[in-house]
Amino acid sequence: MRIGIDLGGTNIAAGLVNDDMKIVCKSSLPTKSERPYTEIVKDMAALVMTLVDKAGIPLSDVESVGIGCPGTPVVETGEILYSNNLGWENVPLLPELAKYIKQPLRLDNDANCAALGETLAGAAKGTRSTILLTLGTGVGGGIILDGKVYAGINHAGAELGHTVIVSGGEPCTCGRRGCLEAYASATALIRMGKKAAAQHPDSLLARAYKENGRLTGLLIFDALDKGDEAAKEVVDTYLFYLAEGITNFVNIFQPEAVILGGGISAQGEKILVPLRRQVAADVFCKQVSMPKILCATLGNDAGIIGAALL
Amino acid sequence: MRIGIDLGGTNIAAGLVNDDMKIVCKSSLPTKSERPYTEIVKDMAALVMTLVDKAGIPLSDVESVGIGCPGTPVVETGEILYSNNLGWENVPLLPELAKYIKQPLRLDNDANCAALGETLAGAAKGTRSTILLTLGTGVGGGIILDGKVYAGINHAGAELGHTVIVSGGEPCTCGRRGCLEAYASATALIRMGKKAAAQHPDSLLARAYKENGRLTGLLIFDALDKGDEAAKEVVDTYLFYLAEGITNFVNIFQPEAVILGGGISAQGEKILVPLRRQVAADVFCKQVSMPKILCATLGNDAGIIGAALL
Repeated sequence: MRIGIDLGGTNIAAGLVNDDMKIVCKSSLPTKSERPYTEIVKDMAALVMTLVDKAGIPLSDVESVGIGCPGTPVVETGEILYSNNLGWENVPLLPELAKYIKQPLRLDNDANCAALGETLAGAAKGTRSTILLTLGTGVGGGIILDGKVYAGINHAGAELGHTVIVSGGEPCTCGRRGCLEAYASATALIRMGKKAAAQHPDSLLARAYKENGRLTGLLIFDALDKGDEAAKEVVDTYLFYLAEGITNFVNIFQPEAVILGGGISAQGEKILVPLRRQVAADVFCKQVSMPKILCATLGNDAGIIGAALL
Repeated sequence: MRIGIDLGGTNIAAGLVNDDMKIVCKSSLPTKSERPYTEIVKDMAALVMTLVDKAGIPLSDVESVGIGCPGTPVVETGEILYSNNLGWENVPLLPELAKYIKQPLRLDNDANCAALGETLAGAAKGTRSTILLTLGTGVGGGIILDGKVYAGINHAGAELGHTVIVSGGEPCTCGRRGCLEAYASATALIRMGKKAAAQHPDSLLARAYKENGRLTGLLIFDALDKGDEAAKEVVDTYLFYLAEGITNFVNIFQPEAVILGGGISAQGEKILVPLRRQVAADVFCKQVSMPKILCATLGNDAGIIGAALL
């Protein structure tokens, strides 16, 4: 049995994970991130005790407690160098938690934990080397090599969204132009959708935008489902750029699988079929088997399970 | 003591490498690649014996023999799946060599061996996780993680030159458009140089092209050294795209070093200074230390030393 804790800006979610990598019980508390970190850590320790009580096992049966935390961790020391979501800088997270919990403690970035969870226990179960792209407000990245998180020597790598695919293209939040994030995030899809709506004011897409007062990824896919040509053009363009990025990562990593997470991944086969087609046509080494391209399956549990498996 | 063999289309070069990762003696034979592979392997075994004789040591003092081979190896079985340079398909290279040499035998791609050699014993000595880009006719790639070659599950990864940085841009040999190879190879530099020569017929660059009947990377850098504005624009453009690629790899890998090999790397600090400046300005995580950006130092010996260190 292991425990995984997904420390978010809103909630601290913890789960007891069995040897089949399944959550057997869960518990959560509000983060209230404005509190001193020592208070938050106290709640994390309380959650661990709640879980073992719920499961009716002694704490000594828990092999390890892993934490997924937003921001930049120093994995070796258990510190959080910087976390925008929590407003933390140089917080000794694991040393503080060790005051309460004597079990081995582990720490990583929440995105890396989600990638590990989806790889070992979720969408790509049975594989050990994968790439995860989270298609949300930005494009998050996770690299799992041989069943372990890879993040480079400063643990600051795996920024897969911040790789330029259109040099000189759309501005990215990171300051460069043309990053994958600026073309394959939900934000980018919506930007493309708004542009198309302006160009095709009679389209379903434009009407949905007007009626709702705002445009979302879901509205764009809804219009696509209803046969709207403008929406189709937007999604085709979006998927073209996403496939450019995926092909790059396949040529670099030859992973066993590429996993897509985030809101857009709920579209499943609708996006996977064209993505697989383009990547298969474009990939450099066509003689060897293609990596699987999959959508994430664990949702929010990925972070808990991944943290437990650190 | 280990032995490394660099099996090329023209020559088989072998070296005895000591525990300081230095070549203590070398020997070579022409490949004559039109021969049956069994004959070539016989010569490889003869080279091994020549080296131990030269060094006056028994074969039993050689811990392992590693081979760097152009093409796609199956590292686990010691076979060459496919080698364009040697005209080989499904050649059982190590099983054949094992008939002559009882020492442990290892195999990898020649580019990966060069990356390993430069990392452990050359430009980046003292590091264990690096990226190597060979700037030649194409852009070759090598990924060394924790002192080992990384090439993905099919050993077909590390195709760093085949990552699109200008979606829809210049055609690449791989069939895509806008790959790093189409912007950062010597071939790309020369293409840019020819274009600039046509646009600026009075430039030194244009005159050098005309006088020599052809344009080379060296001629472009020579014109730059003489203060030619057209050549400066070409090199600036070339280095801009190369830095785009390097920044991408830093954001993905956070390696300890990025090593540049191939003919263009002979320009040393002249290219490194602007590359370092752009990468430092563009890299995603500016809070952590920057990877070193270096030029390769071992030349042809990198492949022999890397093969020995497999």
